[in-house]
Amino acid sequence: MPDTPPPASADPHRFEAGLEKRAANYVPLTPASLLARAAAAFGARVAVIDGERRITYAALHERCLRLASALAGRGIRRLDTVAILASNIPEMVEAHFAVPMLGAVLNPLNTRLDPATIAFSLRHGDARVLIVEAAHAALAARALAELEQPPLVVSIGQAGQDAGVPYEALIEGGDPAYAWKGPEDEWQSLCLLYTSGTTGDPKGAVYSHRGAYLQALGNAVTFGLSGESVYLWTLPMFHCSGWSYPWACVAAGATQVCLRKVEPAEIFRLIAEHGVTHLCGAPIVLSMIAHAPAHERRDFPQVVRCAVGGAAPSSTIIRTMEEMGFRITHLYGATESYGPATACLAQPDWQDLSDEARYQRMARQGVALATLEAVTVTDPETGEPVPRDGSRIGEIRLRGNTIMKGYLGNPGATGRALADGWYATGDLAVWHPDGSVEIKDRSKDIIISGGENISSLEVEEVLMRHPAVMLAAVVARPDETWGETPCAFLEAKPDATLPSADEVIAFCRERMARFKVPKRVVFGPLPKTSTGKIQKFVLRELARELG
Amino acid sequence: MPDTPPPASADPHRFEAGLEKRAANYVPLTPASLLARAAAAFGARVAVIDGERRITYAALHERCLRLASALAGRGIRRLDTVAILASNIPEMVEAHFAVPMLGAVLNPLNTRLDPATIAFSLRHGDARVLIVEAAHAALAARALAELEQPPLVVSIGQAGQDAGVPYEALIEGGDPAYAWKGPEDEWQSLCLLYTSGTTGDPKGAVYSHRGAYLQALGNAVTFGLSGESVYLWTLPMFHCSGWSYPWACVAAGATQVCLRKVEPAEIFRLIAEHGVTHLCGAPIVLSMIAHAPAHERRDFPQVVRCAVGGAAPSSTIIRTMEEMGFRITHLYGATESYGPATACLAQPDWQDLSDEARYQRMARQGVALATLEAVTVTDPETGEPVPRDGSRIGEIRLRGNTIMKGYLGNPGATGRALADGWYATGDLAVWHPDGSVEIKDRSKDIIISGGENISSLEVEEVLMRHPAVMLAAVVARPDETWGETPCAFLEAKPDATLPSADEVIAFCRERMARFKVPKRVVFGPLPKTSTGKIQKFVLRELARELG
Repeated sequence: MPDTPPPASADPHRFEAGLEKRAANYVPLTPASLLARAAAAFGARVAVIDGERRITYAALHERCLRLASALAGRGIRRLDTVAILASNIPEMVEAHFAVPMLGAVLNPLNTRLDPATIAFSLRHGDARVLIVEAAHAALAARALAELEQPPLVVSIGQAGQDAGVPYEALIEGGDPAYAWKGPEDEWQSLCLLYTSGTTGDPKGAVYSHRGAYLQALGNAVTFGLSGESVYLWTLPMFHCSGWSYPWACVAAGATQVCLRKVEPAEIFRLIAEHGVTHLCGAPIVLSMIAHAPAHERRDFPQVVRCAVGGAAPSSTIIRTMEEMGFRITHLYGATESYGPATACLAQPDWQDLSDEARYQRMARQGVALATLEAVTVTDPETGEPVPRDGSRIGEIRLRGNTIMKGYLGNPGATGRALADGWYATGDLAVWHPDGSVEIKDRSKDIIISGGENISSLEVEEVLMRHPAVMLAAVVARPDETWGETPCAFLEAKPDATLPSADEVIAFCRERMARFKVPKRVVFGPLPKTSTGKIQKFVLRELARELG
Repeated sequence: MPDTPPPASADPHRFEAGLEKRAANYVPLTPASLLARAAAAFGARVAVIDGERRITYAALHERCLRLASALAGRGIRRLDTVAILASNIPEMVEAHFAVPMLGAVLNPLNTRLDPATIAFSLRHGDARVLIVEAAHAALAARALAELEQPPLVVSIGQAGQDAGVPYEALIEGGDPAYAWKGPEDEWQSLCLLYTSGTTGDPKGAVYSHRGAYLQALGNAVTFGLSGESVYLWTLPMFHCSGWSYPWACVAAGATQVCLRKVEPAEIFRLIAEHGVTHLCGAPIVLSMIAHAPAHERRDFPQVVRCAVGGAAPSSTIIRTMEEMGFRITHLYGATESYGPATACLAQPDWQDLSDEARYQRMARQGVALATLEAVTVTDPETGEPVPRDGSRIGEIRLRGNTIMKGYLGNPGATGRALADGWYATGDLAVWHPDGSVEIKDRSKDIIISGGENISSLEVEEVLMRHPAVMLAAVVARPDETWGETPCAFLEAKPDATLPSADEVIAFCRERMARFKVPKRVVFGPLPKTSTGKIQKFVLRELARELG
């Protein structure tokens, strides 16, 4: 028999000729399709629960068609910006489908920001419409006062001449059979999300229809959303469009439960009463649940899958919550990656670990989501991947269809973020042999002392174990001898007896290599951003000025 | 406040300028990526189980890289055809990733077909390589004997000079670090799957990388595949590329369990020993499980989700299997739709139904999969959707990214199948108020027996060659075991000696694949219309009533 293949086909184009894209087999990917399909497939299923209100998929679809047509009637066209300032209410879900139906761009605004920053976003994003929930009307008014050419204001739940066009009036006047067109091309812009930079103006990350559709499916597959899932909105929908969960829930046919205020009693009540199976949040949400007083807790029979991002959950939190019936998955992502990019999925060898060892594993940032092309950890000097040895530190980089298109009107920042075929996160991590990544520091927070790299995060973790410490932040302090030394800022627990600096240093010495031990220790409240992030740049200034 | 938005942005291109596709945020969708990601994310997890053999995701990835590089070394390039004739073995999974890595086209062949049809496919698809499992070597040899320019034969599990290049030798000689390129564009052709047409030669349905990637995610979301799922291969992988499950399982990080022969004892053993959670198949597979003798059954604690397509499962089958711990989902699809296009997902009102009423609902073809754009039922005369009244009959049409590119080298058939923005299935159904579709008849005279499509016209053509036969009509006869079986009605030539039914069956066996041979043969004058057209609906009634 011959051991080489026969010559290649005489017709190299046979697999393309007559097999072009057609309306039957090619449709631009868009989250709007996911809702249309859900409404057609299980219109009677409950899509959104808000207090006593139940919105079926059919009703949600109809309301979105009405809203889209009403906005079109007001002159909103493809690639116009529609901003929204709202909590986790049904209208926020609706905006995530109605605006894409028009091919317009949704700009969810962070309700915790100051009026000037809101005004900046509205101006920079060129918003033609601002949808405002009554609870945030005062903030909106102050922001709008700063604009020369304010957008059309649409008001949710607020009456009065001055409130703007009532949202429900738009819905009522809209066309329930509106034939939406969506994007012309799936690469078109879908969402605009401003990230709170530590310095300078916010940057507006732009999502595409394609990316959001894929991230929706990736979330559903990776976190196990199904038609039987009930998702509780403990995560703000204005953060990376709720990590793309408004779309992911609809792709899976799950039910979304609104939550206006993150309070443990209400969280437990909703979990018990609606059979919640999934929630997401920052560590503070988990902390709130884990430390809820007994009278606010409720028992529930189901397992609640809980995805946490922003910082690794502690052993204490994981243990407490697992005992309550939660199942924690630590994940990692950014506004630039449509929310979750990696998740700390279980590895086969976890089953042989002690609980304590497993908790440590669970604190890693983990591995790529189903729809992310790749994650790598690269040496900042050479740009080459570091070895998967769990010790060499490099920068986390991400690549794939669920990475933003770039920053609006900011080619410089876009170019820096997306150079060389990867999105450079700026976060420093090690790469473990099992493929998971673990953040050791944000790139600006690495402390280099006497030629040794010190992870401020690692020092902070140790400090957090001190019984008197509630929050710890460690930054570099310039040092004549060592180049830099670690300087610790500590916020004490209420009612705790303040230890002396020497006691804290002694505590550290017992628990880490000597060069990592803070040389200075300062007690006091830590400066934070509106989203609760510690402002390390302020601390660096303070550290520099310490005598 | 103004009740119109301000003028549109002065810069209508602001959402595109500087936000073009880049390597960091745009990657052609391809199933090959799913394996690369799985290997990077959980390389130690078991991807494939075959008897005593365990292949981890890392090992599967490495084997695919080796195979792809070895094929490239033999001169296989983008859009070359690589055919495979094999059962549900690990190599079949490997081919579904290694060939796409090259951007080449995989052509899985149905091992139940006759040599002439296999030869037709190899010639029509212009196969440069044929991978053959030893168990099917004789069939391959007879098919190859008909070819003027045979492909390079790669042999799985067969020794000897004449067997072709040993598969394992290719793997051993391959490069485990091969940098695959995949498709240049996600619309490029990925798979070629021949379907038995109603008349004439088989048609080769062509899949794209994009479609397969999306169908993989759609399957995973719709049928609840996760990293904890264990999928049993009761469905032949040569059917629509295993309904896209080789890719769906990898997207979810599930374990695939091979099964060479569909036998109840082995199915139960694997379900019990490996904790199988999912399987797919034709009604014959369910029937086999439901009717397994007691000594072949095994108890198992988990729920096994069981997707069935080809014909509706009966009430008896559903009840028996639910009692055993299975959970049935009826689905519907075609080679042209990458396998499942619709699934009969639970509707909220099912909870109020009696078991018997629920079984009837479960027998519907159901609603669109998560990644299908839309399903409709259209009036054959007007082309307009029929009302959703559960009684008006129309043709099922499908639209979306998971519809084939078309038929290879057959623009006429492609044009007919994909005209007017929809894939016309040829199946006649009603549309229910809840959005689900239910097939009432097949318009193209297709008989589905044990999951295999049989063209009644093809069987009739063979019967007409019998010297005693003047007219032949073949229709489906309902069958508890096979779903349907072909039933032949024959009108003899005047003065001809009537052959026995057994003689006719023997005549057919020599001329067609065994599954196509009529199980019942009836002689007599055929009912005709005034214009002489055979009234098949009358024959279908007769067939139903045969004892």
